[in-house]
Amino acid sequence: MGRIFRERIPVDKALRLFLENISTLRKTEEIPLEACAGRVLAEAVTSERNVPHYRRAAMDGYAVRASDTLGTSPANPVMLQLSDPITEGGSIWVHTGAALPKGADAVVMVEDTAAAGNLVEIRAQVYPNRNVGQVGEDIKKGDKVFEEGHFLRPCDAAVLASLGYERMKVFKKPVVAVIPTGDELVSRKKSVDVPPPGMVLETNGLMSALYVKKWGGIPRCIEIVPDNPDSIKRAVETNLDADMILLSGGTSVGKRDHAPEVVAALGELLVHGIGVSPGKPAALGIINNVPVVCLPGYPVAGLVALYFFVRPGLRKLAAVPEVPEIILKRRLAAKISSKIGYVNFIRVVFEGDKVRPLAGAGAGILSSVAKADGYVLVPENIEGYDEGEEVDVFLIE
Amino acid sequence: MGRIFRERIPVDKALRLFLENISTLRKTEEIPLEACAGRVLAEAVTSERNVPHYRRAAMDGYAVRASDTLGTSPANPVMLQLSDPITEGGSIWVHTGAALPKGADAVVMVEDTAAAGNLVEIRAQVYPNRNVGQVGEDIKKGDKVFEEGHFLRPCDAAVLASLGYERMKVFKKPVVAVIPTGDELVSRKKSVDVPPPGMVLETNGLMSALYVKKWGGIPRCIEIVPDNPDSIKRAVETNLDADMILLSGGTSVGKRDHAPEVVAALGELLVHGIGVSPGKPAALGIINNVPVVCLPGYPVAGLVALYFFVRPGLRKLAAVPEVPEIILKRRLAAKISSKIGYVNFIRVVFEGDKVRPLAGAGAGILSSVAKADGYVLVPENIEGYDEGEEVDVFLIE
Repeated sequence: MGRIFRERIPVDKALRLFLENISTLRKTEEIPLEACAGRVLAEAVTSERNVPHYRRAAMDGYAVRASDTLGTSPANPVMLQLSDPITEGGSIWVHTGAALPKGADAVVMVEDTAAAGNLVEIRAQVYPNRNVGQVGEDIKKGDKVFEEGHFLRPCDAAVLASLGYERMKVFKKPVVAVIPTGDELVSRKKSVDVPPPGMVLETNGLMSALYVKKWGGIPRCIEIVPDNPDSIKRAVETNLDADMILLSGGTSVGKRDHAPEVVAALGELLVHGIGVSPGKPAALGIINNVPVVCLPGYPVAGLVALYFFVRPGLRKLAAVPEVPEIILKRRLAAKISSKIGYVNFIRVVFEGDKVRPLAGAGAGILSSVAKADGYVLVPENIEGYDEGEEVDVFLIE
Repeated sequence: MGRIFRERIPVDKALRLFLENISTLRKTEEIPLEACAGRVLAEAVTSERNVPHYRRAAMDGYAVRASDTLGTSPANPVMLQLSDPITEGGSIWVHTGAALPKGADAVVMVEDTAAAGNLVEIRAQVYPNRNVGQVGEDIKKGDKVFEEGHFLRPCDAAVLASLGYERMKVFKKPVVAVIPTGDELVSRKKSVDVPPPGMVLETNGLMSALYVKKWGGIPRCIEIVPDNPDSIKRAVETNLDADMILLSGGTSVGKRDHAPEVVAALGELLVHGIGVSPGKPAALGIINNVPVVCLPGYPVAGLVALYFFVRPGLRKLAAVPEVPEIILKRRLAAKISSKIGYVNFIRVVFEGDKVRPLAGAGAGILSSVAKADGYVLVPENIEGYDEGEEVDVFLIE
């Protein structure tokens, strides 16, 4: 017979406790620039080169010696001879970005010139260095270009490549062992038929693994573990070389509630029973410095625990900087009723410029996951929202 | 000598023209569920199974025959014998999600019961089907679960797995040939030293390839092509089996401006010269139904063309549904001056709760890319924004 959760910890407090117990990994590896998008720099980058590394034309036009243009104007142009290198009275066409030819010290923009055979008419006076980019004017040798912990974007890869880098030292991706538990589970690989009554295909492991991958981890998928403390304990111990462990299932208030017990026996059970609905049976712990999340077996509750705990935990492990989330302001097409004392995770669908809460979408209702575009969070102390109220909508990614 | 752009097409019009000429590929492939996150369904999914496929307990508690609980209340409980299967006067413990035992037609929730050896005290009356999930109540055989064109998330993979799917038919990722052009370019692979004056390392190809990958395409990276029409033409022709072609460089107003000419010669040059700054020299075309983007060689201008044209072009090719972008409302820490007649792409850095425009950040200034957290777009007809004004900030991803 089951135990009823008599206590539950508010979501914020549970998350804070969990994150306080997670140490950033700081394991590093060197990877080629081609693979660095989405990774986090493990060391600051100081440029060993000047950019540009040569004086360059900042405009399309004619490179000249500035002294040859003294007093020049449209009414009083000067004719210069095309020549390279440039000596007194000489000039040559340059395009933007080209190295300034030897002898030149300025560029007259094309609009102030007229070509005429092997001569060019210059109609404007320029001072030395006019329309010339100096060595290092963009990035100087010794400039710090990126801080440690910088999240690398494709455009950053281009910057690093320009500075002559080929490989970067980045933080390793955390390895996350995903362990499905439950006697009712049937491996997806072993069955193409509908399982017998009471048995279900194991799918939360797949969902967890794909989210882990999406959020910057490397999933290690473990075979289904039967619902007994010894088997779960063995599976956890075998995977303590991972950087995080997810135990899926086995946290209901049903008889077979062994995952949190195993965490408590092997390490510290920080939280069991959280003020979020669905997701209440989730548990959080630490074993030998490895964070462990016990995900409820019900798919929506599992999804909630992934979003609320696994994602921020992974970010902290991997030193990924916070990024703003996509939050849309939308009016409700129908009222939301919410359970007091819980953060309520209400799935919604877009409906024109409004969102509609999915009615009767319990923790086990798979179709609600398929239908949901996003979710609305109703705080613990609020009974719900009225039709027409504006709410924050988070996208389900 | 260079040609000056006398015409430019507004960004919106350029993009519309480009997208009108792009046909969604609709090439499909079958992939395992493990690889389906981030892909787009190429066919609607209709469930071939009922979920649940058995009558299940919707609560933890005792399975009973409802008729045995008639008239029961806390003051007037009934004692039932533990038994499985259940016959008259019998009952058995079930946890949420378990198959309803043979003979039972309802579940009494645990809160309304008390265990007593091999008996259980039932303190509430239940009607048939109370706390019982019916076959197919979540998803019925024949229900349409996903439409064609649905963007698959990890939670969707779990839904599909639950329905017994192992592989899905999705749209193929577009193959994008990335062709860097320019005599001034030095391959990153051939040089660890600073290139000679006037020469630069090729890096826009790397940036383009990484964005293509991020946005759901498969980059095909081509070696640097010299700046002459024949070489560029050959490179384009060789890659007309790709789904999109990016020609990087060779669109300046300098002498060597061959990429758009080649596009015009081989197919249709839709747009050359766009009202965006930086990015003005970008060109768009179609050759044998293959969209071609000529990216300006300057890194920031190239980035702008990637964001404005390659990303939406790829989405249309690959049938990826629109997703809302992250747009942050921030006040300006300094004023922005903007060029009238162009959409100005102003790079900004976060500074507390404000954003600061990067001063003097021309199209060629690489450090501005490294520093920028995001960008602000100033419309064609506006001269800029004042310090303290609230603006929309787009993140550079």
